[in-house]
Amino acid sequence: MQGFKDLAALFDRQFEQYQFPAKPDQLYNGVRHILSLRGKRIRPVLLLMAHEMFEPCAEDALHAAIAIELFHNFSLIHDDIMDKAPLRRGKDTVHALYGESTALLAGDVMLVAAYESLGAVRGDVLPSMLRLFNKTAREVCEGQQQDIDFEQRETVSVDEYIEMITKKTSVLLGCSLQMGALIGGAGITNQERLFAFGKNLGIAFQVQDDYLDVFGDPEKFGKQTGGDIIANKKTFLLLHALQSAADGDKQKLQELMRTGGEHKVEQVLEIYKRCKAGEWALELKQTYFEKAMKELDEVAVVSLRKKELESLARSLMDREH
Amino acid sequence: MQGFKDLAALFDRQFEQYQFPAKPDQLYNGVRHILSLRGKRIRPVLLLMAHEMFEPCAEDALHAAIAIELFHNFSLIHDDIMDKAPLRRGKDTVHALYGESTALLAGDVMLVAAYESLGAVRGDVLPSMLRLFNKTAREVCEGQQQDIDFEQRETVSVDEYIEMITKKTSVLLGCSLQMGALIGGAGITNQERLFAFGKNLGIAFQVQDDYLDVFGDPEKFGKQTGGDIIANKKTFLLLHALQSAADGDKQKLQELMRTGGEHKVEQVLEIYKRCKAGEWALELKQTYFEKAMKELDEVAVVSLRKKELESLARSLMDREH
Repeated sequence: MQGFKDLAALFDRQFEQYQFPAKPDQLYNGVRHILSLRGKRIRPVLLLMAHEMFEPCAEDALHAAIAIELFHNFSLIHDDIMDKAPLRRGKDTVHALYGESTALLAGDVMLVAAYESLGAVRGDVLPSMLRLFNKTAREVCEGQQQDIDFEQRETVSVDEYIEMITKKTSVLLGCSLQMGALIGGAGITNQERLFAFGKNLGIAFQVQDDYLDVFGDPEKFGKQTGGDIIANKKTFLLLHALQSAADGDKQKLQELMRTGGEHKVEQVLEIYKRCKAGEWALELKQTYFEKAMKELDEVAVVSLRKKELESLARSLMDREH
Repeated sequence: MQGFKDLAALFDRQFEQYQFPAKPDQLYNGVRHILSLRGKRIRPVLLLMAHEMFEPCAEDALHAAIAIELFHNFSLIHDDIMDKAPLRRGKDTVHALYGESTALLAGDVMLVAAYESLGAVRGDVLPSMLRLFNKTAREVCEGQQQDIDFEQRETVSVDEYIEMITKKTSVLLGCSLQMGALIGGAGITNQERLFAFGKNLGIAFQVQDDYLDVFGDPEKFGKQTGGDIIANKKTFLLLHALQSAADGDKQKLQELMRTGGEHKVEQVLEIYKRCKAGEWALELKQTYFEKAMKELDEVAVVSLRKKELESLARSLMDREH
């Protein structure tokens, strides 16, 4: 059983051998661009860790890990088009560099390439792998649509936000873990527990992300805090405040969202403090983290085999940036 | 063995049972909209006909036919976004009705749904089916990118155009036929002949499409001829004329493309007539049609079993609209 660093390095070695064709060059330069930005490799490593709970690392797990990483990057390209985002990880987005049409196609071809990698797994697990991957991919699209819908809406409940974020980002973590277990020969109960572990961990992670944008240390967070407030982004904190703040504060919050103004961030922060949105968020994060750990706990393998996943989960939750 | 009408009706009955979820409603309304425009069902029928050459119609062939039809509609939605097309089959396009982001996602979710249908075929053929489908899907993306690239380029050769159109549209016909054969238990040689039959038929069809836009009877064609000329679309006829017209005509043609003008269509038509672009196109169409029929001829089943495919191919080539 290997730790995060070793598995990420193992994945990278395999992924480097994976080559896209030279032509059409615009299309595949778009693909190579998003892949050159790399990422933390959290999803493929989760898959490999879940796999190693049951079996030593096998070729099929690496195929599936590549499929997951390609799928993740497909969704980033298309999300950036929809968000009209100029930058990703501090670099130009694919559509900013190559135009929207090529970015759209680069996303499409990466989704197909994800299925190509998935298709390389052994025949006896292929149908289940495909079913799981399809279900997840469809939910990711649905979650993204819900996110778009929410932007247009005046009110969104915390529960609706959790449903959206679960589909948009958390199920892919769950899917990665379940796939690793599936290839490793785990039974359906263990697979489903690992899926639930990833799903709940993903929600906890998102709560934390929303929290850090407001209360994080700007130096450690690497960017100015309050970005979500400026953008009127519907976050856990905002939705909680809109539901739970005192009536006067609710009105003021809505006014600040409409009119903005110089001291918007400070004023919203005051409201968040008064309705204890920060404490509430930390509790919510803890609740989902504990749900996740309980699922991991119940996976029927000796606890030594859960060590790496547990330690990764804890490190994801302890970050201050 | 059933003819076009019966197989199209059989497909429609099966496809009607195929339901997308209600929510998120914007997303799936986009999907339902493109599907409500229907289409001629040429691809699914080709698949079912190829299948019936070897086996009576089976459930798996219908799953694959649905996958092909969903894939085709995915590509239409995304192509319409890229072309900024307001209309398709006389109705609003998905992005015109629901916005580009939802159209993008509706395309994505249809591609995933295509893989869901494909995943329903029996396990022993699934890996080969997936490989064939992935290869085709990737080529369709590449062909679409080449089409975009060609718009930016001054000169494109007829051979380059054939390569682009083969990937963009013809391989999906070939893939449909090969899939039908594969599910029907055909050997690889017969599968490949049917693929080549579809591929060449697709090229012949495109030559004919380009021809009819210029020389078709407007009443039978259902739209004003010369649309491609007005849009400076790189067609078989234009590329041939740019390669083969007399020097003076070449210059005039390039000037007409730059400046347009009231009598552009008539003037381009004169040049096409002088360099015999029409006759050349009909010959080229005939060449590819004969290539296609030769491949069909060599499929190792009794000729009676090829009757329906042959008759469909002939009817596609005889159309005047």
